[in-house]
Amino acid sequence: LRIAAWQCEPAADGLDKALARLEAVASQAAAEGADLLVTPEMYVSGYNIGAQAVRDGAWSLSSAPMGRIGGIAEAQGIAILVGLPERGDDDAVYNTAVFFGRGGIVASYRKTHLFGAVDRAQFRAGPCLSAPFEFEGWRFALAICYDIEFPELARAYARDGVDAILVPTANMLPFDGVATRLVPARAEENSVYVVYANYTGAEGEFTYCGLSCICAPNGEDLARAGRGAELITADLDHGTLDRVRRAVTYFDDLRPDLYGPKENQGEGA
Amino acid sequence: LRIAAWQCEPAADGLDKALARLEAVASQAAAEGADLLVTPEMYVSGYNIGAQAVRDGAWSLSSAPMGRIGGIAEAQGIAILVGLPERGDDDAVYNTAVFFGRGGIVASYRKTHLFGAVDRAQFRAGPCLSAPFEFEGWRFALAICYDIEFPELARAYARDGVDAILVPTANMLPFDGVATRLVPARAEENSVYVVYANYTGAEGEFTYCGLSCICAPNGEDLARAGRGAELITADLDHGTLDRVRRAVTYFDDLRPDLYGPKENQGEGA
Repeated sequence: LRIAAWQCEPAADGLDKALARLEAVASQAAAEGADLLVTPEMYVSGYNIGAQAVRDGAWSLSSAPMGRIGGIAEAQGIAILVGLPERGDDDAVYNTAVFFGRGGIVASYRKTHLFGAVDRAQFRAGPCLSAPFEFEGWRFALAICYDIEFPELARAYARDGVDAILVPTANMLPFDGVATRLVPARAEENSVYVVYANYTGAEGEFTYCGLSCICAPNGEDLARAGRGAELITADLDHGTLDRVRRAVTYFDDLRPDLYGPKENQGEGA
Repeated sequence: LRIAAWQCEPAADGLDKALARLEAVASQAAAEGADLLVTPEMYVSGYNIGAQAVRDGAWSLSSAPMGRIGGIAEAQGIAILVGLPERGDDDAVYNTAVFFGRGGIVASYRKTHLFGAVDRAQFRAGPCLSAPFEFEGWRFALAICYDIEFPELARAYARDGVDAILVPTANMLPFDGVATRLVPARAEENSVYVVYANYTGAEGEFTYCGLSCICAPNGEDLARAGRGAELITADLDHGTLDRVRRAVTYFDDLRPDLYGPKENQGEGA
């Protein structure tokens, strides 16, 4: 399975231009043989746009723009993971990523770990982790930006049998270490692929750090973007994943009896 | 507080030579202003020496060799963290690290996560995590080699208020990623210092990968060894640690309600 991660500037010219740009890059990714295109956090609207713009521009997952994105995926023959401000049935706005297969929405996920003032001003936190889902023989789960910085989340997915974690992000300077240290560590410590698609350029007070990557289940970079706009691709391979998982014994060697509250740990040696 | 991590070849010539070498490097580290010297896993005996040699050479923490190491620490005016095969009251042998302050044993820890056939042939797994301990105004905890690869362990220590995790290790090729990705990630994701002291050279079928490091609580290398023998040093600084902890919100933003067994997570969004 070939995956493309698109490192681009945030959308700033409205939905029509964002979708035209998405269609062009989906076409390019499909031409490069990609089966799935991962885009940055909140691609449809931009990320750091303010609470009012988020609220005004929030869609339900059954709204017309969702149908247009699904149409792009279908027309270009490529699955697309895209983020948007989602208006829930509870009228709250969530920071949501939606996985469009070639025939419609396969899965969606609402960001659970809100980062700082911008996220909190714009969104309500999601109530639960991504439900893992299947696509073309692979088991995926979703995370958004700050989510992947928590080892607990990737561990929970891995224990749930996930093969690859897809992560739209809007990671800004000076947090290069998230892209270069934490994301590869999540892959290595869990024997999973991690796809991390970030922005380049500036948006309000943020300068995004790029460095999008596709990490192998041994933690190595299969593909790594620089600072500028770029489409990176890499192949997920069942044989590679199986070999890594046969060699790595983390899940056999975990000792959940040890990590709980101190009162459960007994005395030190 | 200045910490030195000693990357050296495994001891292979018996206790007397190992302690002579330890005294020389303790003297050197003290001359460089270090307050604490961290040595690789099982420094006193070597690591990959076989179950029989481990059993024959195991000491209790009240035995004479322990007194000799304490004497080196006292004479050189430097704390020393050193590993050995420890014979427990239960007659089992543990892979143990002992922290000698300038006036005797301050703390000890038995490796809890055994790695592969060599560890399992040689040792019984320890029953609990390291009890954090104070030294010169810093709160430390201990881990040994494979232990630090589990994010759960470092997280438990950080939640217990630990400032720095000290890690004697015997990490071999091809596992560079542990030293270059996982150890820095443990520091960054927990806002703690991590000191990782590895071997260089070969021992039986293992070739050790070196790359010992002292990582800052933002994940960056304060000091990083190459492949060969080396003494690296770095300063722990309360101001730096406080600044990182004020900027990082991981512990405020954790959502322990989300990471449990699937049946506790509710349905996907």
